[in-house]
Amino acid sequence: MNTIGKLFTFTSFGESHGKAVGGIIDGCPAGISIDEEFIQNELRRRRPGQSKITTPREEEDKVEFLSGIFEGKSTGTPIAFVIWNKNQESKDYDHLKDIYRPSHADYTYQQKYGIRDHRGGGRSSARTTAGWVAAGAIAKLILKQLGVEITAYTSQVGHIAVKNSYEKLDLSQVESNIVRCPEQETAQEMIDYINQLRSEGNSIGGTVSCVIKGVPVGWGEPVFGKLQARLAAAMLSINATHGFDYGKGFEGIAMTGKEMNDPFVMKDGKVSTLTNHSGGIQGGISNGQDIYFRVLFKAVSTILQKQTTLDKDLKSVELEARGRHDPCVLPRAVPIVEAMAAITLLDLYLMSK
Amino acid sequence: MNTIGKLFTFTSFGESHGKAVGGIIDGCPAGISIDEEFIQNELRRRRPGQSKITTPREEEDKVEFLSGIFEGKSTGTPIAFVIWNKNQESKDYDHLKDIYRPSHADYTYQQKYGIRDHRGGGRSSARTTAGWVAAGAIAKLILKQLGVEITAYTSQVGHIAVKNSYEKLDLSQVESNIVRCPEQETAQEMIDYINQLRSEGNSIGGTVSCVIKGVPVGWGEPVFGKLQARLAAAMLSINATHGFDYGKGFEGIAMTGKEMNDPFVMKDGKVSTLTNHSGGIQGGISNGQDIYFRVLFKAVSTILQKQTTLDKDLKSVELEARGRHDPCVLPRAVPIVEAMAAITLLDLYLMSK
Amino acid sequence: MNTIGKLFTFTSFGESHGKAVGGIIDGCPAGISIDEEFIQNELRRRRPGQSKITTPREEEDKVEFLSGIFEGKSTGTPIAFVIWNKNQESKDYDHLKDIYRPSHADYTYQQKYGIRDHRGGGRSSARTTAGWVAAGAIAKLILKQLGVEITAYTSQVGHIAVKNSYEKLDLSQVESNIVRCPEQETAQEMIDYINQLRSEGNSIGGTVSCVIKGVPVGWGEPVFGKLQARLAAAMLSINATHGFDYGKGFEGIAMTGKEMNDPFVMKDGKVSTLTNHSGGIQGGISNGQDIYFRVLFKAVSTILQKQTTLDKDLKSVELEARGRHDPCVLPRAVPIVEAMAAITLLDLYLMSK
Amino acid sequence: MNTIGKLFTFTSFGESHGKAVGGIIDGCPAGISIDEEFIQNELRRRRPGQSKITTPREEEDKVEFLSGIFEGKSTGTPIAFVIWNKNQESKDYDHLKDIYRPSHADYTYQQKYGIRDHRGGGRSSARTTAGWVAAGAIAKLILKQLGVEITAYTSQVGHIAVKNSYEKLDLSQVESNIVRCPEQETAQEMIDYINQLRSEGNSIGGTVSCVIKGVPVGWGEPVFGKLQARLAAAMLSINATHGFDYGKGFEGIAMTGKEMNDPFVMKDGKVSTLTNHSGGIQGGISNGQDIYFRVLFKAVSTILQKQTTLDKDLKSVELEARGRHDPCVLPRAVPIVEAMAAITLLDLYLMSK
Repeated sequence: MNTIGKLFTFTSFGESHGKAVGGIIDGCPAGISIDEEFIQNELRRRRPGQSKITTPREEEDKVEFLSGIFEGKSTGTPIAFVIWNKNQESKDYDHLKDIYRPSHADYTYQQKYGIRDHRGGGRSSARTTAGWVAAGAIAKLILKQLGVEITAYTSQVGHIAVKNSYEKLDLSQVESNIVRCPEQETAQEMIDYINQLRSEGNSIGGTVSCVIKGVPVGWGEPVFGKLQARLAAAMLSINATHGFDYGKGFEGIAMTGKEMNDPFVMKDGKVSTLTNHSGGIQGGISNGQDIYFRVLFKAVSTILQKQTTLDKDLKSVELEARGRHDPCVLPRAVPIVEAMAAITLLDLYLMSK
Repeated sequence: MNTIGKLFTFTSFGESHGKAVGGIIDGCPAGISIDEEFIQNELRRRRPGQSKITTPREEEDKVEFLSGIFEGKSTGTPIAFVIWNKNQESKDYDHLKDIYRPSHADYTYQQKYGIRDHRGGGRSSARTTAGWVAAGAIAKLILKQLGVEITAYTSQVGHIAVKNSYEKLDLSQVESNIVRCPEQETAQEMIDYINQLRSEGNSIGGTVSCVIKGVPVGWGEPVFGKLQARLAAAMLSINATHGFDYGKGFEGIAMTGKEMNDPFVMKDGKVSTLTNHSGGIQGGISNGQDIYFRVLFKAVSTILQKQTTLDKDLKSVELEARGRHDPCVLPRAVPIVEAMAAITLLDLYLMSK
Repeated sequence: MNTIGKLFTFTSFGESHGKAVGGIIDGCPAGISIDEEFIQNELRRRRPGQSKITTPREEEDKVEFLSGIFEGKSTGTPIAFVIWNKNQESKDYDHLKDIYRPSHADYTYQQKYGIRDHRGGGRSSARTTAGWVAAGAIAKLILKQLGVEITAYTSQVGHIAVKNSYEKLDLSQVESNIVRCPEQETAQEMIDYINQLRSEGNSIGGTVSCVIKGVPVGWGEPVFGKLQARLAAAMLSINATHGFDYGKGFEGIAMTGKEMNDPFVMKDGKVSTLTNHSGGIQGGISNGQDIYFRVLFKAVSTILQKQTTLDKDLKSVELEARGRHDPCVLPRAVPIVEAMAAITLLDLYLMSK
Repeated sequence: MNTIGKLFTFTSFGESHGKAVGGIIDGCPAGISIDEEFIQNELRRRRPGQSKITTPREEEDKVEFLSGIFEGKSTGTPIAFVIWNKNQESKDYDHLKDIYRPSHADYTYQQKYGIRDHRGGGRSSARTTAGWVAAGAIAKLILKQLGVEITAYTSQVGHIAVKNSYEKLDLSQVESNIVRCPEQETAQEMIDYINQLRSEGNSIGGTVSCVIKGVPVGWGEPVFGKLQARLAAAMLSINATHGFDYGKGFEGIAMTGKEMNDPFVMKDGKVSTLTNHSGGIQGGISNGQDIYFRVLFKAVSTILQKQTTLDKDLKSVELEARGRHDPCVLPRAVPIVEAMAAITLLDLYLMSK
């Protein structure tokens, strides 16, 4: 199951230390100008080594298109692309070959398949999301033409959360700091906290929030293709995610029906709602208001501290990870969340035509 | 998109006040004894009117099988079934025909399709989940044979939450009170709170938690059919759901990697983990530990208080719902959560064979 | 795999002697007037007992809609329907319970599933196609609005074939005789031949041809959803089919490229082709010309003569079928071919929007 | 729709004169030894320039695997591969840029997508089947381990047909001549005929027959995933195919039920059938006998003679193809038929587990 989507589909391939990661987009509308610089920039936002709070590994992440584009435009045929893996220092992982790292996928892959590429997590590595970001970038290009804009940001790191709801944030500031939090003071606290944990060889999680503006009424397919169900599935496909909510979400758990309901009103001659606790979705279908949701990421499993676990012979072993790792994936997860939202929305748009 | 699943698929049909709700199960393994009494009992758990904190509407919810069963056993061919709608007092809904109720799907369905069956919410009514529970009951029968047991319970109503984690609860007590919370004192608080809101014509939401025991290592399909992604999509297909988390979830947001990681250990000669913060899933694949997750339900949209909204001519109107409604859907959502979990897990089991 | 289609999907259920056959249509566009008399008439064309050359069994085949239709119009939600089985004289089949009839599906179903409903062929009975015809009738209603007309006819029975290509036939005459062959003299020969075989307790096959007019350029999805591939799969899903060709097909096997090619020309101000050997499809996509194809049906397996075969204990047994059976399925297959063509085309139309 | 299969899926990409063709295999069982030499040899059988009756274009068709294989074995994760296009002399096609070649896909692609890569047929070129053969080779490797063997051969070229049914042919001789017909005399006639047509700048079609031995009882999914329907769809996805039949097929059209039926008998202690007119399939499910079918290919559209057609401005133009083309695709279609059969069968095997 490495394909997502129904009309706009993306099939992903690749392992962390294989030749390449990438995929095939099928169902891309024809005649779209493929802005390679935009796509490359999205990959840059995801790429490791981009700041001092992410892993210092340098990866090029240059996307190479193999098909489906002619004279700069999509032709309606499959768009295949590869992102070559470079500097795969496979030997770095030899000591992990026979060890089941705690809270990684080593053990489950080994049991399910009887074989696994252990280098850098193999297929379960977040490296594969480079391909997702490239596919999402193409979806974004099309959604932009439809007036849909997707913006994600880091909204919580450990116990440090943004203080304002998304309406009060200046979302144009997301890229202005390395943690991708548009509240500058909070951003600094987050950065300091991440740096502290890094120095301890520890890691931390948090939430990425995402706001989607410009979706018209009618996207989403009842009853088993609801907009929120499709978004949740897309988000929980991202490595290390553990939760999803939309609209008021868990923060609104104590609100009564009277407080929660969003009465319809006319605003500027258009149907709108007085509040938007529903997060822009009713009955699984977009209602024309902003769609907003949160994605929960647990703390990264790779820590630079001693841990006890089992090896393949089911013997207890001590493990101490080496090398370069993200103490917090959230800043780099921001473009991944956006990409998966874009892939999901474009598919639902095509379904709703 | 009224079909869920890949190998064990369920296609749902039906409106609240049409002739019937029901569906077709395709891919049910052959030779399974179809225990109709068990299935009927699951429907009873979902049915309205079962207690004083649910709607007093009486619905029979008697399932009638039309195919796929021969001499009491599944034959491997599609199992179609219907649950006839009774006492459809359609006239009760005449006053809602042209009104977009706040936070309901009236407006979005009307805009998407240009037509809708307005009676009782039509297709967007939770009435349709009667069919889901029937399909889930068949999935449960098969999972039981595989040693898998699924138990859901009401874990929070408004601000009132269970005090203990699932390991410390006596899950055999779920059915011992009408709110389906195994912590008896908390249950009583929840019931009192729901009764209070009902008397005010108001409503409330909360969380249903679900525990799945007995899933072996290896269920779940990377990378776009991850166990948690499939569960999330299934849960967010249920009416009024707004969130999902698994393992420690949002409560573990401030935990560092060191605290969060689940080291592998041997226990009773089998691979186990010291803690289970991962919720039984690693890399999208079950790891043999208990799977547990929460589903967030917002407060019911139908309240018996005056509200202002729009009608189909986009004029402001006053609306006051009449009739019989659940002030809190959680107790009746418990079997629905279990059913959707069962449908999801059985499909992933068949995928993993 | 009892579902066909991607956007307009039909999920079939039912056994010959179960309670009912029927299905669920998902993805039917909203706002379509559901002309029940038209649908019922299509079922009448398929129904047994309609003439002296078909089985004299009388089946009502009255379709009952359960959902998805409101005030006579489709609502965009799933349309479930049942056709109740009547006069199921199951005891008629007791002597076949343990016998594998030659060239029937008794043996393969038993081996695949370990259990089967033996009565009247169970799931493998052509009885289930009643549901297909109902679903196809709804597809036809929509295609008619798009200007697409589908006409099938019996083109060969045993060695007796129509003498003219479809362009020279008066397709309005298909329903004017009981064998559904628009060439009246040939029709009479076919009828006589079928009657002769019936009197001998024997059976015969042949071909149904189908012509589709009015499909615009652009339907069909390269490379694995080609129009001809989708049609072939739909046709070879029909019971007793053994072959499919389109355009000149097998009759053009000796034609060279020079003879076969269809040069593009302008006709009445529109792009057309001088000849139409391609059958209206190029590169898997409709080219605006008539689509035409043939479906091969083998002789019916049930014959009223003594045959030797095996029973479930793998012992040799003599079998002599009793009762009422079609000596030739072709006349009743005509509406089934049309129905499956309609289901396929409507789906490809929705894909091409 | 560039994906085929349900559990063993293959997603194809690539254009004739783009950077590469290839695809992604998803659902390949883990632990399979990937015999690259075998795969390369299958590609060699399809490759142009292999003999004097095929096009003399030299293509390397070297497959490069990018993922899903670790230390020579499949890991259960997606296997992506590319076959780089070499010597793409795009300028050769400049004169065809604005012309709709008769019976090619130029016009339909242009109308459907509004844009097309005109070079060498772009996406509609048979060049893309190089990827299919690579994917099929992997499926073959797995089927071989299950005892399933697939052999195709050229059975008719124009009016010249093999004289014997497959049982009497020595299928080990298929590769012994360049037309891939195991009847040596007939092969020579075919070769002579093809050479004659080539010298005239003309082309010819015919049939490829395929025999599958070793499939056990139980593969194939009723009712819309029947073995014959899946095979037909796979075959009619191949460029230039116009028909499919299995078992006795069209040649048995005049056989009565009595003649056609295959009585079950015991043979060597196993269930068998006296005859095998059904072609190894009953009720859509394999019955343990040989599966055999034919695929009809029309004459190649590209001929080296003057033709009249339209250009993009809908003006009449004269066209004369240049360059190197196959006068008859059948010899090179043999491995493609086998590949598509293998992909289809492996998928049905996985479904039947």
